[in-house]
Amino acid sequence: MIEIQSTKNTYVKELKKLHRKKGREEQQRYLLEGFHLVEEALRSEATVVDILISPRGAKEWASWIAEQTVPMTYISEEVMEAISEQPTPQGILAVVSFPKPKKMTLQGKWLLLDCVQDPGNVGTMIRTADAAGFTGVFLGEGTADIYNLKTLRSMQGSHFHIEIQQGDVEQVCQAFQAAAIPVYGSELNEQAVPYNTIKKTEQVAIIMGNEGQGVSKALLSKTDANLYIPIYGKAESLNVGVAAGILMYHFS
Amino acid sequence: MIEIQSTKNTYVKELKKLHRKKGREEQQRYLLEGFHLVEEALRSEATVVDILISPRGAKEWASWIAEQTVPMTYISEEVMEAISEQPTPQGILAVVSFPKPKKMTLQGKWLLLDCVQDPGNVGTMIRTADAAGFTGVFLGEGTADIYNLKTLRSMQGSHFHIEIQQGDVEQVCQAFQAAAIPVYGSELNEQAVPYNTIKKTEQVAIIMGNEGQGVSKALLSKTDANLYIPIYGKAESLNVGVAAGILMYHFS
Repeated sequence: MIEIQSTKNTYVKELKKLHRKKGREEQQRYLLEGFHLVEEALRSEATVVDILISPRGAKEWASWIAEQTVPMTYISEEVMEAISEQPTPQGILAVVSFPKPKKMTLQGKWLLLDCVQDPGNVGTMIRTADAAGFTGVFLGEGTADIYNLKTLRSMQGSHFHIEIQQGDVEQVCQAFQAAAIPVYGSELNEQAVPYNTIKKTEQVAIIMGNEGQGVSKALLSKTDANLYIPIYGKAESLNVGVAAGILMYHFS
Repeated sequence: MIEIQSTKNTYVKELKKLHRKKGREEQQRYLLEGFHLVEEALRSEATVVDILISPRGAKEWASWIAEQTVPMTYISEEVMEAISEQPTPQGILAVVSFPKPKKMTLQGKWLLLDCVQDPGNVGTMIRTADAAGFTGVFLGEGTADIYNLKTLRSMQGSHFHIEIQQGDVEQVCQAFQAAAIPVYGSELNEQAVPYNTIKKTEQVAIIMGNEGQGVSKALLSKTDANLYIPIYGKAESLNVGVAAGILMYHFS
């Protein structure tokens, strides 16, 4: 068994570039940390290019490792610490290819994200969309990257379960409306429609917006209706991930 | 105007101890960062002991500062960076006294937290409880500290709006039940009761549990019923903050 021991190794240098969006886009792949997510990736349709294992990981998952047929690379703890973005790496990392672009399914239930900035919020919303039985999540421009470490951590593998698409939110809204699927914006405005008065439908598209600014005015003007979640206390607003959960479960 | 310029100043050293729970408990006070939260504290019943302002903050909020009647201490940017826990401090910090213990209001709607570990989750749930018009949140032992920087940041001042109590969850459940208020556990178990089949009541206590372990078995055995949120997709579970939001809004 050969173990990479130098953080200056060319392959290691390439992997470290995956910490940044630019590097991920150039190489068309991303890093996935931790045993649970690596297992999820292997069970999914995703292409796992390589699994990186440190001595700690090799010891911890010895019997599991023996059963795998994917390529594996052994690296020293020092190299693992250089590649991992966790304070205390578990000792196992997967290098996963970007999925091939697929035609978007223009039916069912969709969550559309308009400039949601926090990776934790984006990941949580994708996880919730999965739990709520949604068809997919559409990440509009200005939304946090799906392959950011924090997004991946809070998403808990849900990007392997539901459809993820990216692009222009306004265009996709037009496509939903052309397909007679209602598009609802979300708004912190008592003039908007209380969400619980809206009839549940089999097909729906719900737009969630930026943490500070909300959904852009331009988009709100083109929806079928804009929903709001009543605030009964003195809080100014809800966390966007919590709000998305309440709205999605209303349609589940 | 005297400005503290040394990070070795005795007062500065005392303030830095407030980064830790031990220090906060010894001094019975905590730090609150950022203009918005400082304003919320001043508007609330909380006792603001001191406001710390750096040159940046003094410039930014000059007219606001001129109108205040609370004590203020000017500190250099270097001292601000030593006291602040933000990567780029806004230049304003408040030192706030712990509230005086108050008798718990044994009525209305309550959220009870059983060993919720992540400060962000605890803060988000308190913010949501406020939005949902809950009476208060009860932090059981093993739950993240309410005055942790991350809790405070995600709570957005909601601890000034609703009742916060701490102690033994089991005891408080007994007290609710003795007062004929239904106590519901939450559980990731299809044998439990789907939350949307439970009648909304004016008074209710809902228990949320640890991120990994859920609500303790001992507690679940003593509730009036245990609720679960159906999972329609392939996600294993919901984020605890999102789950709490869905359950609380069901009762709002």
